[in-house]
Amino acid sequence: MIFAKVIGNVVSTQKDENLNGMKLLLCKEVDCKGKPLNTYHVAVDAVQAGEGDLVLLSYGSSARMTDLTKNAPVDAVVMAIVDDIMLTESRLVPKKKQS
Amino acid sequence: MIFAKVIGNVVSTQKDENLNGMKLLLCKEVDCKGKPLNTYHVAVDAVQAGEGDLVLLSYGSSARMTDLTKNAPVDAVVMAIVDDIMLTESRLVPKKKQS
Amino acid sequence: MIFAKVIGNVVSTQKDENLNGMKLLLCKEVDCKGKPLNTYHVAVDAVQAGEGDLVLLSYGSSARMTDLTKNAPVDAVVMAIVDDIMLTESRLVPKKKQS
Amino acid sequence: MIFAKVIGNVVSTQKDENLNGMKLLLCKEVDCKGKPLNTYHVAVDAVQAGEGDLVLLSYGSSARMTDLTKNAPVDAVVMAIVDDIMLTESRLVPKKKQS
Amino acid sequence: MIFAKVIGNVVSTQKDENLNGMKLLLCKEVDCKGKPLNTYHVAVDAVQAGEGDLVLLSYGSSARMTDLTKNAPVDAVVMAIVDDIMLTESRLVPKKKQS
Repeated sequence: MIFAKVIGNVVSTQKDENLNGMKLLLCKEVDCKGKPLNTYHVAVDAVQAGEGDLVLLSYGSSARMTDLTKNAPVDAVVMAIVDDIMLTESRLVPKKKQS
Repeated sequence: MIFAKVIGNVVSTQKDENLNGMKLLLCKEVDCKGKPLNTYHVAVDAVQAGEGDLVLLSYGSSARMTDLTKNAPVDAVVMAIVDDIMLTESRLVPKKKQS
Repeated sequence: MIFAKVIGNVVSTQKDENLNGMKLLLCKEVDCKGKPLNTYHVAVDAVQAGEGDLVLLSYGSSARMTDLTKNAPVDAVVMAIVDDIMLTESRLVPKKKQS
Repeated sequence: MIFAKVIGNVVSTQKDENLNGMKLLLCKEVDCKGKPLNTYHVAVDAVQAGEGDLVLLSYGSSARMTDLTKNAPVDAVVMAIVDDIMLTESRLVPKKKQS
Repeated sequence: MIFAKVIGNVVSTQKDENLNGMKLLLCKEVDCKGKPLNTYHVAVDAVQAGEGDLVLLSYGSSARMTDLTKNAPVDAVVMAIVDDIMLTESRLVPKKKQS
């Protein structure tokens, strides 16, 4: 899975009928520190993500493994909203000495 | 899914029989602001897209999840015509003060 | 799908038994104007393509959707020979004035 | 499969219910000599990997082939902890002559 | 499929149980002329390839289409050992004139 930030959504009227009722989120990929990369993805929203949310995207056939997306011709889904990214390195930073 | 613009189509006589009746669209990838990228895709048309249309492309096994494409050896499908792309940033532009 | 030109074939004796009877084509990717790119693909021939032919390649599980390739451990198939690529732009070139 | 080093984990409360009980590892891709590359992956932990472990990642539908991940909308899984990478070249280094 | 050269193997004790009995080969990608590229792949050996062999790799769900790999969480398999790569260009070299 990759990290992305929700930055908008896509409006479509003429579409495959299996897409009805799905919200298509426009997501900008970010790295694990939240830094924006120059890649965009359109993904179905399976977790009621809001704009600005940091989310996880799953690609390929796995994108059809939510109740909402099964049988739909979609190759990307937002399947989790990220609360926190715990980096080992940052935790290894020594605490300030108690003196 | 990714954004693309329909810029032509592909003619083929000698092909796998499961492709019969499908229109193969030539699509040029674009970014979320419509700027052309230097990547081309051939995708089956599942939504009667016309040349010049801004569309969404789905890749992989998901490309076989339309009535038209199931069981066909195709890895890309045009499954939606894009009416509008709503960017949060543009909406966040502060309205002109009413004074 | 992507465009490629058949430039050779691959000979293999020691292989998975599900590959028996399949011709493995060596294909060089080209862009939509036929310009060679620097990428090679090995794909099963499902349409009796000949060397020099401009073809379409389908990747992933879709490569197993021909009668020939189902159940085989192959991730790429040549599923169409391209007769013509119709570019909108080229058709928009104004015809020579009749004077 | 690709090599990666576990460098943290991802916390998510609002997520698809099929993700419940899964640990999402943050992994930094490395090459076969352990040199860090500049790519990050989030993958489900299927082998109780610890932070700092060198692991193997499997992508796509294959990520759903563990007991833990089947039916979950995840496209990457940590399915092995690497003990050792045996390079032929290093073994081919001629032994010091016995004289 | 892509070409690769077997350059080693990967040892793992703590792994998903569906991987038991499989040999994990370390493969370096090469182009169609055997020139090494800078990409490494770990793939299950389905054809008893030896180190130094030039092989074909299949990726994705297709990697699970051998008797050995079905149901295993693996996304790459070595499914053929390459005897020869026949390039059209080289065959087109005119034979020495018989005079």
